[in-house]
Amino acid sequence: MSITSHDVARLAGVSQPTVSRALRGDHRVSETTRARVREAAEALGYVPSEAGRSLSTRSTRRIGVVVTDLTNPFYPYLIEPLHDRLEQHGYRMMLFTERSETALETERLLDRSIDGVVLTTAVLGSALPAELTRRGLPFVFLNRETGTGLGDAAVVDNEAGGRLAAEELVRLGHHEVGLLGGPADTTTGRDRELGFRVGLSEAGVGLPRERVRRGPFDYGTGYEGLLELAGQRPRPTAVFCGNDVIAIGAMNAARRLGLAVPGDLTVIGFDDLPMASWETFGLTTVRHDLDGMAQAAAELLVERLAGTASVAPRRVSFAPVLVPRGTHAAR
Amino acid sequence: MSITSHDVARLAGVSQPTVSRALRGDHRVSETTRARVREAAEALGYVPSEAGRSLSTRSTRRIGVVVTDLTNPFYPYLIEPLHDRLEQHGYRMMLFTERSETALETERLLDRSIDGVVLTTAVLGSALPAELTRRGLPFVFLNRETGTGLGDAAVVDNEAGGRLAAEELVRLGHHEVGLLGGPADTTTGRDRELGFRVGLSEAGVGLPRERVRRGPFDYGTGYEGLLELAGQRPRPTAVFCGNDVIAIGAMNAARRLGLAVPGDLTVIGFDDLPMASWETFGLTTVRHDLDGMAQAAAELLVERLAGTASVAPRRVSFAPVLVPRGTHAAR
Repeated sequence: MSITSHDVARLAGVSQPTVSRALRGDHRVSETTRARVREAAEALGYVPSEAGRSLSTRSTRRIGVVVTDLTNPFYPYLIEPLHDRLEQHGYRMMLFTERSETALETERLLDRSIDGVVLTTAVLGSALPAELTRRGLPFVFLNRETGTGLGDAAVVDNEAGGRLAAEELVRLGHHEVGLLGGPADTTTGRDRELGFRVGLSEAGVGLPRERVRRGPFDYGTGYEGLLELAGQRPRPTAVFCGNDVIAIGAMNAARRLGLAVPGDLTVIGFDDLPMASWETFGLTTVRHDLDGMAQAAAELLVERLAGTASVAPRRVSFAPVLVPRGTHAAR
Repeated sequence: MSITSHDVARLAGVSQPTVSRALRGDHRVSETTRARVREAAEALGYVPSEAGRSLSTRSTRRIGVVVTDLTNPFYPYLIEPLHDRLEQHGYRMMLFTERSETALETERLLDRSIDGVVLTTAVLGSALPAELTRRGLPFVFLNRETGTGLGDAAVVDNEAGGRLAAEELVRLGHHEVGLLGGPADTTTGRDRELGFRVGLSEAGVGLPRERVRRGPFDYGTGYEGLLELAGQRPRPTAVFCGNDVIAIGAMNAARRLGLAVPGDLTVIGFDDLPMASWETFGLTTVRHDLDGMAQAAAELLVERLAGTASVAPRRVSFAPVLVPRGTHAAR
């Protein structure tokens, strides 16, 4: 580790600042000199120090991505396209995988080792976005927002998606329906429920409190939730689930109870993860464009960092579609 | 972002180097002075620059974690305990999620912005470990190795696991067995196959070439592989799969073909991911201690960084166990 830019400068016969500029691809250095410096650096096995570079350019080309729920299979499918699109723009991704946003030490995001932030698991009322704004660190919401309109956002139209599920259940003649929803303090949880309620309500179908269970977007919420709802009389003939993972939990609980899906129970999910289309599940679900959403978030942030974005926050909302498979049936 | 350590120094009435030392918790600065500096920094909303700090201490307290396959649900379950254990030691994790190890620009790992590396998806014959060694960057293998004995490693005893599966199939009387294995250029793929072959072979059961399919550790390898094997006569009565995700692919293909599991076909997986125990699958599988393995890798690397480790590479190997559920039956 003892090779420095001074050694490279000596070998290439240029000054040390010229080495730094040349290796950064600075066009104030001629192509010939840049090539000479690159050759010298290669010959010596010299790798420029990022820490030094970031002090001189004040940019780290790193984006912090906050994900509090990595074992939810949803997030890896967001992170891959996000990673690829950021990379196309010369940014690399630094993942912050704390268990919750409150556990995330804000200082970590603010220590100037990153240029911007992607928030994928924001909760309503989170103080983090305001803090980032105050400190001047650009950020974008991906998938979830805080509902304040503060900051750029790439999201699915969750309300429209909930409405699609409701309309399908109404069309199939279900009156006794249940909801196994996501957390009430997330826009994905809240807005899917809202759209679902509106869709049912317009058709004259109610969704009483005792037919609603909410919890984390995980298997257990669907599994435990369905065991509870299935004990009620009259038993719900259909459930809408806050995401596919919850729906799969519900289907497994149905199996444990000996309830046939869709014969005894219609199940509708949200997301259309690859596992929704597995033969074992054949889940009818609300699909949205995960790749497109992740790519839009990357573009919004990159434009913000480049200073080419408008001052006002921008919001890209993707329309969902219903994907009919094998878990829905007429009542 | 205009507050600097000089402003903090002025407010606290100390020199700028004292500010840096105080905020690093350097014990050459008295507790009283440290408290005064912390108060001044807080009052001004000053956050120390990591880039500056890493130039002065030559440590970034960051660990690079290389994962080339994040959408495989296996890896998030490794990354969570790894993250937690590294955090306990004051390290944060930086995830490198390139599609393959060759796509990973080695320069990125070597730019001195990290202190060490965890390799989770190493392939046999990879040049990366030798390069890291040459450049003096400490690393540890987690889950997969390169088979060179170069570097610390925390792994499961894959050969023993393959043997467990073979012994179970032999006990159940299966003679026509198949293998849907992982890639031949991974230790997890190769050694599970090796142990499986040895176990069968000792009982006088062969595993002819046409009964073996290998591919990525993903759903498609199991799904496509089983469609092929099931077309053979005599049809295999049991398959051992390189991991749970492959096994779940195979079970879905079996379902498509109308083959009952385990009535017509026994399926055994490897890993015991949470989804293996879902009612829909009830997968008989080879379990190993994911948390323990990830934690051991963190400890090995931290000791290596602290300079308290022996010079020779160390290898921690975890013994697997067979978890009998509902996908195995006598022939």
